Amino acid sequence: MSEPTSPVRVAVVQFDPQVGLENREANLRNTLDLALQAANDGANLIVLPELSTTGYFFNNRQDAFAHSEAVPAGPTVQSWVNFARQHNVYLVAGLTERDGAQLFNTGVLVGPDGFIGKYRKAHLWNLEKLWFTPGNTGFPVFDTPIGRIGLLICWDIWFPEVPRILSQQGADIICSLNNWVWTPPPLFDDAGKCMASYLTMTAAHVNNVFIAAASRIGEERGARYLGCSLIAGTNGWPIGKVASADQQEILFADIDLTSSRSAPIWNSLNDLHRDRRADLYDAMLGYTQHPCLPR
Amino acid sequence: MSEPTSPVRVAVVQFDPQVGLENREANLRNTLDLALQAANDGANLIVLPELSTTGYFFNNRQDAFAHSEAVPAGPTVQSWVNFARQHNVYLVAGLTERDGAQLFNTGVLVGPDGFIGKYRKAHLWNLEKLWFTPGNTGFPVFDTPIGRIGLLICWDIWFPEVPRILSQQGADIICSLNNWVWTPPPLFDDAGKCMASYLTMTAAHVNNVFIAAASRIGEERGARYLGCSLIAGTNGWPIGKVASADQQEILFADIDLTSSRSAPIWNSLNDLHRDRRADLYDAMLGYTQHPCLPR
Repeated sequence: MSEPTSPVRVAVVQFDPQVGLENREANLRNTLDLALQAANDGANLIVLPELSTTGYFFNNRQDAFAHSEAVPAGPTVQSWVNFARQHNVYLVAGLTERDGAQLFNTGVLVGPDGFIGKYRKAHLWNLEKLWFTPGNTGFPVFDTPIGRIGLLICWDIWFPEVPRILSQQGADIICSLNNWVWTPPPLFDDAGKCMASYLTMTAAHVNNVFIAAASRIGEERGARYLGCSLIAGTNGWPIGKVASADQQEILFADIDLTSSRSAPIWNSLNDLHRDRRADLYDAMLGYTQHPCLPR
Repeated sequence: MSEPTSPVRVAVVQFDPQVGLENREANLRNTLDLALQAANDGANLIVLPELSTTGYFFNNRQDAFAHSEAVPAGPTVQSWVNFARQHNVYLVAGLTERDGAQLFNTGVLVGPDGFIGKYRKAHLWNLEKLWFTPGNTGFPVFDTPIGRIGLLICWDIWFPEVPRILSQQGADIICSLNNWVWTPPPLFDDAGKCMASYLTMTAAHVNNVFIAAASRIGEERGARYLGCSLIAGTNGWPIGKVASADQQEILFADIDLTSSRSAPIWNSLNDLHRDRRADLYDAMLGYTQHPCLPR
């Protein structure tokens, strides 16, 4: 089959990975245990957070190196591949990738037939710049039997270009792997959402694409993570609830991936993708430099 | 003076213009009366909705022609210019512009020294395509003594490229003129916000720019308008409240426009504008075509 099976049950897993070599085994076991819970509840596509087997807050580049492994040859991705084969599911998760002397903040997609592909985070947050290399994979969209799947990682969604480019390539669903942390206060509004919840919702809305955003919880070396995982529908609104700020949770959504293909037309004259004024953007995006930045 | 005066008091005016030649005089009077209220309360920059003197829902192109006038030579803009001179304020508002055989959905910026500039809506919504010409002004940013001001009109903000391009040119504040109508349900969430509220908030957040969004209320030839005007800070969150769905209101915010220039840096390593990966976008934006669209 080459067209999406609909509905697909999508699960996003919110949990608390912890940095430190002594925690790697427990982190990996957590990803497999939680993915199993999701699979047992019928999930076809399971999304785990950014850096889900290594934790986030490395001390330095040497520390990051020690947590890294090859993709897909390393043991973490192979464990996920085995899991996906055994349970006939698609799984998306993040880890620290080593490729020669370079480290990447990487997300992988694996499925019943094995490793499908990887995405290396393009926009690096804060100290990540001291150990990771900025992603060089572009923004790939992977064709699978359940639909077209794109990946983005955390700070990427602060750049509306990313979900736009994934959607322009026809992604039905974007799997968003996150370790959401501080944003300019307030961190949460009265509805218990963080700004990243809204970035996810609006990116889904303007692109008519599903976004399954898995975030993490807990604290780690002084950093507080915000939870707030969600699955946004093509209308932008969360399907079901937005996760808590501090509880381990699995969210599910039964979604018809084909609706990302058939419903970009809002009325007989508008279409979110066709209405783009690329004639006006081309000369400006990418080249224009904010006048306050160093030249 | 060429640098922003801070703080600036910004006002957004939410009211109910009504289409129909018999209502034009009352609409214009309303814009002046409400702008006067705002000015009397200390506003330096006053933002009124899209098509604020003509109403929105024309019956056909002939009807739209009958509501149109030259910009800036026509009587509406001249009234606004006189108002701005008299009260020493900047005013942004929308009207139906005629230029030869073409009609545009246009926003103007006027100030104490007269007409400053106009923006013609680039992304046309629904039946607008039957009477308006897609905007051909690009996305200008106007330098004024109180700061750099960009304009966008309604459906434009569904295209994240627009606030991005305005911000990349250094806009301190984007004046967003709206007649917000239907979006895929629900129209409002439990917090009383519509999706356009969140589009405004997230566009402000990811671009570190103020957005003053004036929307309209009321019903007109069967169309319901959503209100929900707001002024978003550079952190994305509303300054003060989001306006109601159905009441005439004026919102105010005292804002330091220079904070849009000094605060894009979130930490010593990140900067919302400098972190753009234009190297990855250039090859993809504008050219890629969604695979489901007609070629």
